[in-house]
Amino acid sequence: MSITHNLTTISISSSSSSFLAPSSFSSNSNSRCQVSLPVKSVGICKCVATPQEAETAYKTKVSRNGNMAKLQAGYLFPEIARRRNAHLLKFPDAKIISLGIGDTTEPIPEVITSAMAKRSYALSTLEGYSGYGAEQGEKPLRSAIASTYYKDLGIADDDIFVSDGAKCDISRLQIVFGSNVKMAVQDPSYPAYVDSSVIMGQTGYYQKDVEKFANIEYMRCKPENGFFPDLSSISRPDIIFFCSPNNPTGAAATREQLTELVQYAKDNGSIIVYDSAYAMYISGDNPRSIFEIPGAKEVAIETSSFSKYAGFTGVRLGWTVVPKQLLFSDGFPVAKDFNRIVCTCFNGASNISQAGGLACLSPEGLKAMREVIGFYKENTDIIVETFDSLGFKVYGGKNAPYVWVYFPGRSSWDVFSEILEKTHVVTTPGSGFGPGGEGFVRVSAFGHRENILEACRRFKQLYK
Amino acid sequence: MSITHNLTTISISSSSSSFLAPSSFSSNSNSRCQVSLPVKSVGICKCVATPQEAETAYKTKVSRNGNMAKLQAGYLFPEIARRRNAHLLKFPDAKIISLGIGDTTEPIPEVITSAMAKRSYALSTLEGYSGYGAEQGEKPLRSAIASTYYKDLGIADDDIFVSDGAKCDISRLQIVFGSNVKMAVQDPSYPAYVDSSVIMGQTGYYQKDVEKFANIEYMRCKPENGFFPDLSSISRPDIIFFCSPNNPTGAAATREQLTELVQYAKDNGSIIVYDSAYAMYISGDNPRSIFEIPGAKEVAIETSSFSKYAGFTGVRLGWTVVPKQLLFSDGFPVAKDFNRIVCTCFNGASNISQAGGLACLSPEGLKAMREVIGFYKENTDIIVETFDSLGFKVYGGKNAPYVWVYFPGRSSWDVFSEILEKTHVVTTPGSGFGPGGEGFVRVSAFGHRENILEACRRFKQLYK
Repeated sequence: MSITHNLTTISISSSSSSFLAPSSFSSNSNSRCQVSLPVKSVGICKCVATPQEAETAYKTKVSRNGNMAKLQAGYLFPEIARRRNAHLLKFPDAKIISLGIGDTTEPIPEVITSAMAKRSYALSTLEGYSGYGAEQGEKPLRSAIASTYYKDLGIADDDIFVSDGAKCDISRLQIVFGSNVKMAVQDPSYPAYVDSSVIMGQTGYYQKDVEKFANIEYMRCKPENGFFPDLSSISRPDIIFFCSPNNPTGAAATREQLTELVQYAKDNGSIIVYDSAYAMYISGDNPRSIFEIPGAKEVAIETSSFSKYAGFTGVRLGWTVVPKQLLFSDGFPVAKDFNRIVCTCFNGASNISQAGGLACLSPEGLKAMREVIGFYKENTDIIVETFDSLGFKVYGGKNAPYVWVYFPGRSSWDVFSEILEKTHVVTTPGSGFGPGGEGFVRVSAFGHRENILEACRRFKQLYK
Repeated sequence: MSITHNLTTISISSSSSSFLAPSSFSSNSNSRCQVSLPVKSVGICKCVATPQEAETAYKTKVSRNGNMAKLQAGYLFPEIARRRNAHLLKFPDAKIISLGIGDTTEPIPEVITSAMAKRSYALSTLEGYSGYGAEQGEKPLRSAIASTYYKDLGIADDDIFVSDGAKCDISRLQIVFGSNVKMAVQDPSYPAYVDSSVIMGQTGYYQKDVEKFANIEYMRCKPENGFFPDLSSISRPDIIFFCSPNNPTGAAATREQLTELVQYAKDNGSIIVYDSAYAMYISGDNPRSIFEIPGAKEVAIETSSFSKYAGFTGVRLGWTVVPKQLLFSDGFPVAKDFNRIVCTCFNGASNISQAGGLACLSPEGLKAMREVIGFYKENTDIIVETFDSLGFKVYGGKNAPYVWVYFPGRSSWDVFSEILEKTHVVTTPGSGFGPGGEGFVRVSAFGHRENILEACRRFKQLYK
């Protein structure tokens, strides 16, 4: 029995592997162990609960949240991590190279880490100790973000909310919006947009036939439309999640496209949540911020992150811009509600991470970040050239650390498994980002150079 | 005109001061500037929007979330900070002492900060760099928390979810529960429980006459019942938030009381969310964890934090225990849904903070934490003795860093203002924690020794 075959056909549980084993889980369809890995050889799944045990387990009378039950699968990246681990158990000596989750690999420049170390040490001194900071972030950092990324764009320091990362802010924004909004996403797109929408109760059930949730507008982005949606064909959404440079396709919207997007939002009274987490990867003259587009402050929020700029995926630091000019239909400022959520559901990013963020935005820090980004962009070129030379249609890469490779007529998960099985390289199946990603695989350029080169050698071996 | 008088009678806006000023705010009742501070002398409020301006401002067609609109006041502590700042503008030379928000003041022991500095520096090396960590926390830390705080209680490492703090986890738990649950809180209690419940849509509107939200069970905790609610008098809640040692009353529940609480939850199928953020302050033999009570794993979640143990209020690190044995009514494990939220709406605590947490739980770290806690407990004794000597009825203090002082027949906000105005000491009005806190003021014991002594001298001057 092929474990890889199993892995591509299993019904995915909504939990991570750390919750597969409890013996007291009941036997109902939601909680049954759905992963059929061979128990003894893999050892991460022990479905030993018998119906008798399950029946005697105490259950509270609290109903499970129906929105949670709508979610279809494990969050994409933990699921990929699980498959990677299963592969490693099958091939313990395999030199696995991970170009899957966009996880940074290069050390953080010392100008940044020394600022964090200094702040850590300072916390042991009377003068340097600080407790609770402002929930919205430390003023010097808010100011540095505004002047570095939004100079001359009319964004004030107090429009900037410092956070522990863009993913976290996306959920906080969803809490602000609540359950009575309809949202639109690029298809394919970063899974956190759709999943947080489901969790907040904005959607209907998952429709298996079309692989979409009801009451979400999936805006198809494909090579044929330059990865920019046909806005004339969608029904009006309240909230438009728009990521550029895009994860996963790597496409960066042009000034004309973003002008069209802002105009659409203006005409329809929609709010754009613009995810610019990869803006520093832009090589050309595409806008780095939605606020470069005139009028955007009245219709847009922007969320961004130090994760992919400074290797802060583990340090955790990001920010969200909510301009004061952005108003709900009753004239109430969106920023006031977001501020309330930040104060009630969050307590600010770590002061040590914030010291690192401030160092990132010093002249030396910016130079160091650009060097690391330049390194990853060289990786991107190597990957693009590899798939190009093998005759694949390749997208993205130029303005983003992601390469979007087309495998016409094939299932993304099949290709993912084929690549993992035959080359021990972890990628990300395009369909994990929505039905519009089917047939594609995302290859991340985050990796040590020798690993990128080795992965490309293996790709050439497999697809020569 | 007394600014202090103004401060005690204003209708509190739901925003922090940083959002009071935009000139494009519309003039509807929700967004009008409700703080009537004298504009010129204070300078933090510029309500200059005229109806004309407001009418011409672009508004989106996105409706404001009705749950956000239900919230009545600014989150308590930002509101207190605003009043403190206003006081400072009136008395620029005042030596303000803050015993308000429970913000730690003593430096973090070096054994802990040096571990964080070391981890920071390591992030600049190839061997020491790490990107995304497990969303649930690093394994050694989960393991150390389990063995330090839950030894022999049957809590497994993977029942522990490391977070960026208890406040954040409370909101994540509310997202898990969704809008169709009814919750109970101690009255008075930490405001984040009620506010997050309102935000999630679990409540009705605020009822001004009783100062409560509809569809929340306020469990009165007062001197007469030993600060433990009469459970026979409440209507069945799904979720019971229970904080012990309590913030704000300082009361620590006894083993008998917690046994009664767990039995109530068992009998009624309720889930207890037990907040043990102050457990290390317990002097007597009261339980430190709800899981010391037999059967609690089937009905309880516990959330806790390094904030008040290690001075991590700014570093941000906490954890939540969700036992696998805790099941929704359909048998689905609560932990699986919490895990999904942690993976989808959060990306793990900062790796540097986690290195600090691990150092906290080393033998030297534990010793150092106990010394700092012992220092704050001496502060508590000084404050208790002061109010005792002045003839006040004083509660709390013994097992918690909070002293709960009774001012019979007086409004908490009036007493707060009197103390601030006459002694330049910031406290917290009891009614900010719920109607059951009316007539009380919470005095925090977090402070440098000389400030505690000076504050107590001023209290003696005022109330001699």
